[in-house]
Amino acid sequence: MVYRRYFEAAVSRLKDERRYRVFARLERDVEAFPLANWHRDDGSVEPVTIWCSNDYLGMGQHPDVIAAMVDTAGRVGAGSGGTRNISGTSHAIVELERELADLHGKEAALVFTSGWISNLAAISTIADLLPNCVILSDASNHNSMIEGVKRSRAEKKIFRHNDLAHLEELLIEAGDRPKLVVFESLYSMNGNIAPVADIVALAERYGAMTYVDEVHAVGMYGARGGGVCEREGVMARVHVIEGTLAKGFGTMGGYIAGDAVIIDAIRSYAASFIFTTALPPAVAAAACAAVRLLKRRPDLRAAHQRASHITKHALAAAGLPVLENGSHIVPVMVRDAELCKAASDMLLDRHSIYIQPINYPTVAKGSERLRVTPTPCHTQAHIANLVESLVDVWHTLGIPFVAPPSHLHIEEKSDGKCSYPEIKLAAQ
Amino acid sequence: MVYRRYFEAAVSRLKDERRYRVFARLERDVEAFPLANWHRDDGSVEPVTIWCSNDYLGMGQHPDVIAAMVDTAGRVGAGSGGTRNISGTSHAIVELERELADLHGKEAALVFTSGWISNLAAISTIADLLPNCVILSDASNHNSMIEGVKRSRAEKKIFRHNDLAHLEELLIEAGDRPKLVVFESLYSMNGNIAPVADIVALAERYGAMTYVDEVHAVGMYGARGGGVCEREGVMARVHVIEGTLAKGFGTMGGYIAGDAVIIDAIRSYAASFIFTTALPPAVAAAACAAVRLLKRRPDLRAAHQRASHITKHALAAAGLPVLENGSHIVPVMVRDAELCKAASDMLLDRHSIYIQPINYPTVAKGSERLRVTPTPCHTQAHIANLVESLVDVWHTLGIPFVAPPSHLHIEEKSDGKCSYPEIKLAAQ
Ligand SMILES: Cc1ncc(COP(=O)(O)O)c(C=O)c1O
Ligand SMILES: Cc1ncc(COP(=O)(O)O)c(C=O)c1O
Repeated sequence: MVYRRYFEAAVSRLKDERRYRVFARLERDVEAFPLANWHRDDGSVEPVTIWCSNDYLGMGQHPDVIAAMVDTAGRVGAGSGGTRNISGTSHAIVELERELADLHGKEAALVFTSGWISNLAAISTIADLLPNCVILSDASNHNSMIEGVKRSRAEKKIFRHNDLAHLEELLIEAGDRPKLVVFESLYSMNGNIAPVADIVALAERYGAMTYVDEVHAVGMYGARGGGVCEREGVMARVHVIEGTLAKGFGTMGGYIAGDAVIIDAIRSYAASFIFTTALPPAVAAAACAAVRLLKRRPDLRAAHQRASHITKHALAAAGLPVLENGSHIVPVMVRDAELCKAASDMLLDRHSIYIQPINYPTVAKGSERLRVTPTPCHTQAHIANLVESLVDVWHTLGIPFVAPPSHLHIEEKSDGKCSYPEIKLAAQ
Repeated sequence: MVYRRYFEAAVSRLKDERRYRVFARLERDVEAFPLANWHRDDGSVEPVTIWCSNDYLGMGQHPDVIAAMVDTAGRVGAGSGGTRNISGTSHAIVELERELADLHGKEAALVFTSGWISNLAAISTIADLLPNCVILSDASNHNSMIEGVKRSRAEKKIFRHNDLAHLEELLIEAGDRPKLVVFESLYSMNGNIAPVADIVALAERYGAMTYVDEVHAVGMYGARGGGVCEREGVMARVHVIEGTLAKGFGTMGGYIAGDAVIIDAIRSYAASFIFTTALPPAVAAAACAAVRLLKRRPDLRAAHQRASHITKHALAAAGLPVLENGSHIVPVMVRDAELCKAASDMLLDRHSIYIQPINYPTVAKGSERLRVTPTPCHTQAHIANLVESLVDVWHTLGIPFVAPPSHLHIEEKSDGKCSYPEIKLAAQ
């Protein structure tokens, strides 16, 4: 092929910059999560503990969720058979959309094949339907939101991450043009939570429409799992809430919820919604089961927070550089692409722990990290093992430790090992 | 909400132009396909015959495909748990990618969450990696390909649909710049097949790279279901083949196949691949079962063509305006948006037949149609019922009939009804 060398050069560039990604092949096991089977290239298989899943609550393994998928596949088949318009609107999707509208207290919801597509479709369509619109977008927004902003024909202005003063400046600058403020409630790489109530209040003051990505919060925050906006009491005041079915809800797909007329306009105009096959009913039914279940399981949300809290506490007490944040995400900073990859490899090879390195372009160069995501399925023993393994890797590779925060009290046991507060896992 | 009126106006525009879409809510039934249950808004349920499914071969209902989904969900859960890089690369996806590479005789394949995303990701990434690239794109290409072309920074030139002379002109014009020819093997709305061998030969003559969308052909054409390029013996000469898992393969997802280095470059650079949760293993396993099955089932492909052939024959003999083409797709032309919608509604209400109207923007204004897709599961009785129902609707609404082609021989029976050749359905 005549252009082969261009593709070769592109791949080489990544290898040179140490950001060529190799995907580990993992076979999960419902009986054993967070354990999974790692298939090596040589054909051998080894059990490993997954510490970086975005199936934050273990919903992908929940018997009710699996039962919904299995039952629906058995009754109605493996696929939807077409786009939403061409025979693809199943009973299961309609039910799921109702459940999601109810979750967020909105008139309507619309399901997409992924959270990525939800953002692309919804942001670009909203901005294109508002004449002379200007989009105000948080500097740390996810790639899918950036793609939505880019695809629209609207002008965009970036405000500094979570910077209310800067956002206000831009709102004033935009005058009486239609304005769309686009942000996340929980930024997944740092784990920091946006001041959603303040952003909404600002937007209201200047007559801007608000669009929030709650992908890393739905299922996990708020009394019924409606997300950070539910917890902060501003869910009714945000115009469009976007979420995924693939993280807290453990399956696949994305969605938006909002006023019926907004949802209907996006449904009717968004090409990335119109021209693609609908989610299989079995997937929609599984997601629906997870959404329903989590509405009445604050105990699982509490267990999740507890697991995360204890993990952070234990890692920090051991002098590992944990990024402080108010969420369930535990970033352990390495700040070097090569070391980060090496740490991940050593965790897998030596300690049978799977945590992918998070390197550029997912995070900025110089802020490479291991992103640890405790679930309610991780036990105290898993956490203790994680701490010991990370300490070993940090020592072996010479990654800098930091002084533990003074407020941490770790009991030292007679054998010299640390003990961590017991995690009381809710029975699922 | 301050911008409410803009969304209201947008929706009203569609209603005024009679292209506001209402999705019928259908519950498929594995035991009864192509019958499904239609859920009316008033809560009542009625069995209808689906005549517009893109589950062309009924693979979504196939016991092996469903068994793969059910078994995998039971073993490994309902979701993948993350992006491909973050613990989302399952055993099932790796197997599926192998099966697809083998299907197309290519070194590698890469699975996406949909065919739509495959096109967006692959076309834009390839074009961006070729310096100073010009994209030559067929005028009838699918929305997802157009989005891929637009998203890239490359210059694009549109050649008239399937027009080799025009394509050659543009190839000459582009001189020695890198050139990417982007086309479909089978255009789904007209059902016409591209001269793939001629396009490939032209591209080779002028040193252009070729990218073909075989979404409506994979599983259905070629000795093993590799598509039109397999059938025409040019599969090895096309650089990238794109397909879906949601039509002939009856499930969900999309993919590309090609040289390992091209696939690796797209894997490494495409944002819409990198930043989204991977397909659930259960879906990948179901798709894999369908791909495997269809490699050794030319009889199902033959039954599909036979069903389509007989349907076309019967409709044309009754004077219904069937668009001639060499494929399995049966477009019945109405050429008016309102009549097309009315015909679809009447088919459903009066005859319990479900065929969505295909209106703008899916097809050009003035070429509105009913798009009939026979499957091997439609019997002779279904076909006879379809013809009689369409004739009734055509009469009632005053849609013009056409003279039946002279070569059609339909036996007239003593009761005045027509008889159609018996369809021998392959046992699945
Ligand atoms: C903030 C954010 N939005 C959207 C997405 C995309 O969601 P999905 O994985 O369902 O495509 C992700 C990650 O995957 C994300 O982190
Ligand atoms: C030609 C063509 N390419 C791509 C797609 C998208 O495939 P998918 O439904 O898997 O997103 C479609 C239709 O859905 C199509 O008709």
